[in-house]
Amino acid sequence: MEDWILEGYKSRAWAGETSEAQEGKTLTLFGWSFRFRDQGGVIFVDLRDRTGILQVVLRKEILGENFAAAEKIRSEYVIAVRGTLRKRDAESINPKMKTGTIELVADQLIILNQAKTPPFSLDEFEEISEENRLKYRYLDFRRDELKNRMLKRHEFVFAIRNYLNSRKFVEIETPILNKSTPEGARDFLVPSRLNPNSFYALPQSPQIFKQILMVGGMERYFQIVKCFRDEDLRADRQPEFTQLDMEFSFVSQEEILAEIEGLFSQVMKDVFSLEFKGPFSRMPYKQAMEEYGSDKPDLRFGMKLVDVSEIVKNSDFQVFAGAVANGGVVKAVCVPGGSVISRKEIEDLTAWLNRDYKAKGLAYMKHGAEGLESTITKRFTPEALSKIASAVGSKEGDMVFFGADEREIVNHSLGALRLKLSERFDKPAEGSFHISWIVDFPMFEWNKDSKRWDSLHHPFTSPGDSSLEIFSSEERLQKDAGNALAKAYDLVLNGVEIGGGSIRIHSKDVQTRVFSTLGIGPEEAKEKFGFLLEALEYGAPPHGGIAFGIDRILMLMTGGKSIRDVIAFPKTQKGVCLMSECPSEVEEKQLQELKLRLIKV
Amino acid sequence: MEDWILEGYKSRAWAGETSEAQEGKTLTLFGWSFRFRDQGGVIFVDLRDRTGILQVVLRKEILGENFAAAEKIRSEYVIAVRGTLRKRDAESINPKMKTGTIELVADQLIILNQAKTPPFSLDEFEEISEENRLKYRYLDFRRDELKNRMLKRHEFVFAIRNYLNSRKFVEIETPILNKSTPEGARDFLVPSRLNPNSFYALPQSPQIFKQILMVGGMERYFQIVKCFRDEDLRADRQPEFTQLDMEFSFVSQEEILAEIEGLFSQVMKDVFSLEFKGPFSRMPYKQAMEEYGSDKPDLRFGMKLVDVSEIVKNSDFQVFAGAVANGGVVKAVCVPGGSVISRKEIEDLTAWLNRDYKAKGLAYMKHGAEGLESTITKRFTPEALSKIASAVGSKEGDMVFFGADEREIVNHSLGALRLKLSERFDKPAEGSFHISWIVDFPMFEWNKDSKRWDSLHHPFTSPGDSSLEIFSSEERLQKDAGNALAKAYDLVLNGVEIGGGSIRIHSKDVQTRVFSTLGIGPEEAKEKFGFLLEALEYGAPPHGGIAFGIDRILMLMTGGKSIRDVIAFPKTQKGVCLMSECPSEVEEKQLQELKLRLIKV
Repeated sequence: MEDWILEGYKSRAWAGETSEAQEGKTLTLFGWSFRFRDQGGVIFVDLRDRTGILQVVLRKEILGENFAAAEKIRSEYVIAVRGTLRKRDAESINPKMKTGTIELVADQLIILNQAKTPPFSLDEFEEISEENRLKYRYLDFRRDELKNRMLKRHEFVFAIRNYLNSRKFVEIETPILNKSTPEGARDFLVPSRLNPNSFYALPQSPQIFKQILMVGGMERYFQIVKCFRDEDLRADRQPEFTQLDMEFSFVSQEEILAEIEGLFSQVMKDVFSLEFKGPFSRMPYKQAMEEYGSDKPDLRFGMKLVDVSEIVKNSDFQVFAGAVANGGVVKAVCVPGGSVISRKEIEDLTAWLNRDYKAKGLAYMKHGAEGLESTITKRFTPEALSKIASAVGSKEGDMVFFGADEREIVNHSLGALRLKLSERFDKPAEGSFHISWIVDFPMFEWNKDSKRWDSLHHPFTSPGDSSLEIFSSEERLQKDAGNALAKAYDLVLNGVEIGGGSIRIHSKDVQTRVFSTLGIGPEEAKEKFGFLLEALEYGAPPHGGIAFGIDRILMLMTGGKSIRDVIAFPKTQKGVCLMSECPSEVEEKQLQELKLRLIKV
Repeated sequence: MEDWILEGYKSRAWAGETSEAQEGKTLTLFGWSFRFRDQGGVIFVDLRDRTGILQVVLRKEILGENFAAAEKIRSEYVIAVRGTLRKRDAESINPKMKTGTIELVADQLIILNQAKTPPFSLDEFEEISEENRLKYRYLDFRRDELKNRMLKRHEFVFAIRNYLNSRKFVEIETPILNKSTPEGARDFLVPSRLNPNSFYALPQSPQIFKQILMVGGMERYFQIVKCFRDEDLRADRQPEFTQLDMEFSFVSQEEILAEIEGLFSQVMKDVFSLEFKGPFSRMPYKQAMEEYGSDKPDLRFGMKLVDVSEIVKNSDFQVFAGAVANGGVVKAVCVPGGSVISRKEIEDLTAWLNRDYKAKGLAYMKHGAEGLESTITKRFTPEALSKIASAVGSKEGDMVFFGADEREIVNHSLGALRLKLSERFDKPAEGSFHISWIVDFPMFEWNKDSKRWDSLHHPFTSPGDSSLEIFSSEERLQKDAGNALAKAYDLVLNGVEIGGGSIRIHSKDVQTRVFSTLGIGPEEAKEKFGFLLEALEYGAPPHGGIAFGIDRILMLMTGGKSIRDVIAFPKTQKGVCLMSECPSEVEEKQLQELKLRLIKV
């Protein structure tokens, strides 16, 4: 290797960091030929490295016989150049380029490697199919979009670690090879060769280990850690994803929320120059469900669900009156400017809400010049119509939609409608953010199929102080379980749940009552949660924690369309890596060692 | 919860951080009752939290009816106390305790949780069986030894990230669900439910992904990442372990070594207050093998292997003369003070070296008052004996051992003997460290079984500049492959290989020649390394990297006996977690979903 290159390795300059201040300096750069134009005797190459682009001028009169190399340069060739940094002539200044006022006039050039023509353009403005971006991920990394997201990701997790370290949190690695849990979402299993017919499971979260660490007195734990879930993959799911996992001892919910607000404010400011000042707004779960039909409401826009049961319960419109009479509700949503929605569109919306949310119908009224009007308005008194308009705040040009059914169906279906129509009628501004805690979750949720109570969060979640009364006796609990609130909290950003957690139970009595409410007897509890239950008996401190989806947060903050946009090497929705072509078949010998046989499909 | 506790949650004091400067202040502390003594009317409790211990004085006259709670306190009860910090009376000062001059006189006390009596003492001086420490890991965490190692581990990886971030390295997460490789050490397999009969593999290292990132122009990558190997577990192996993985573009070996020296010096200074100043010493692989019989020599002590073939080749001792005549060597090691080794011990050593290293025998001579003496010394001239003594540097009271065999057997067996006897005769001082690079590894190693060349490192390792000549033609390479040196390097600390890496091949021509030397044709290369080979054609920069075993480094630096001592939740040598009892059987339903059947054992 030539001396000037070895010298350059030691003290290279970075393209994106060159500036007019270096005028006249001799610099050595390394990178890729991003664009080039041959003007006969002089060749201009935009040299690109990780930090940016610098124009390199290759002149025959300077390079001499080395100019032959310059003539061979093609797109994405890897080159080393040495030269003098100059200001450009006024007419060749490129104001769109960060280094558009300067260029490097080369006196040395070497082609370090050639490149085949890439299967797609690396230009930032080109729209490339995701399939190609995943298959040729090494080329996608050379495009600003993915590269900048990876750099932001690094900055983001680095800033998190810095902050948490300063707050006495200790990062501790928990195992990837774990025990399979009998229930819950699906585990990935890993057969053990040393222990045939036995399996490890990849962790869905380090929940039990972090509670163990609290029992162990580590007091403040965090980890940025891979978790795994073998589910059918939706747009925003990956078989492996990254969590910020945290657990604290000797805290109440207030300290945890305050700590997280401190973390977020600092990191969002440092990494994204955004102000997220605490305390964040808080909304009880019940309010979120009633007013937004969701436990993760997007609060960047309005279109609240308004209960109009009282107004319509005595109307002649049997669909409304009957729903209320049967113990259900009637709610309305006003879509600003929504009167342009066509009858055909409403039919499609109705079919969708019926299919996905079991909503029997979708009544609607336009707000015209004379107030609310529709085929059904004659069933209501003018006073009732005027009360509805005023309750939902509609004005001329708006559309009001109604749901009339069991409370749950109304909330879910109108909540979904609200979200869908916001894309067209109340679209939040690009780059706007709204963050909020959802609190006061119910402890239990009635499972109609198994006819028993399920945990809404998980069975170690502590009841709220105001609900402790309910746990004072077995009878009271059986009657009132549905009213018990939990010390659980979710953090919601722009309608996406980015994190959630709870205070855990550390009292054996309360734990036993919660188990019995869930229909889990002592035997079953031992089998399912054995070593954690045992650990709780050896001096467990009051503790609680939270976990965040790093991929989701980054997707929202960098404007990605899916979490695949912020993961270096993601899988497709079928769980396949298009670049390495995994998963794949393995050799019979390997299966034999694992004492496994395939059931051929 | 009482107000003073909620207040305390917001502004607790930490036991180990209290000091005389806080005298007279009201403090609230939380923690565990580590030791207690009841003196009737006054109870002393050593309250322990993560930071240390503070003595709490519980007086009946102050606590009133709350004193009843104090009387219930037992070992490892979880307590909250509020009180006033006081200097102790002169006679109760404990100079062995960091907070031995102060105590907290409590005015509030609550037992937050009870604890069963731990199955072992948490005292730092107690020797606990590893089995118990693993099973009750949550109690082991409360002991200083494990707790401090975990805190150091956090500090260590935090310092690494800080340094690398300042040096433009970007942390990028590579997948845990990977493609299974057809060869190499054993993969853990993960069956895919979405793609039945197909498997992911857990990564043995992110090698291919990090090279892909270099092709992608990320230039400086690192990751602190879990890697996996399904091997029979030795003392210093775990099925999952943590690596610091790095890769750089546009560098030669010199820049990589210098960068790592900078990293080590800084981190060792920050975390362990130790000076590891660069440049580190370097030793060629050949010298390490010849003089220490190991590619990871422990250079904290002497006892070098000395080649005495020339001295003994004409002796009457047929074992020596014959070995040399057959193309082998005779080497000697002087053990200082080793003349106390008994004949019985030597017999045991001989049997061990025969069993594990195929050494046919172990000749020896004591250095007595008259020089070297032994049953065999009469076969040597006095001049020869004196030359041997002077070559190995023996003096009265030493023992000289000999190996006479093929070079490889002699090096390996005497290297092992050297290590074993150093524990007794040339033991390095506690807390002494020696770090060294091993460089100039051979590219290839002749495999006697398959009768072909294997890569010593991996097939993407670049030849050294001085060996490029050998790769100039196919014929030359076939003849001279054994002499080709690689741009590969290992970092050795106290006889443990803590890291290794290489410059990678980025030229297609050299890569093709290396493959053909290894007997890998184009078809096989494509099947094994397909997407990486394809990537290398799209503009791969010169690049290289290195990976470090975080667990091993921490074990050495914190005086652990095995890497289990620095891993929060390790597996046993059978790959079992004694706390969670994994791996375990799974339900038939799960196997059916994965389209798997067990071969019962």
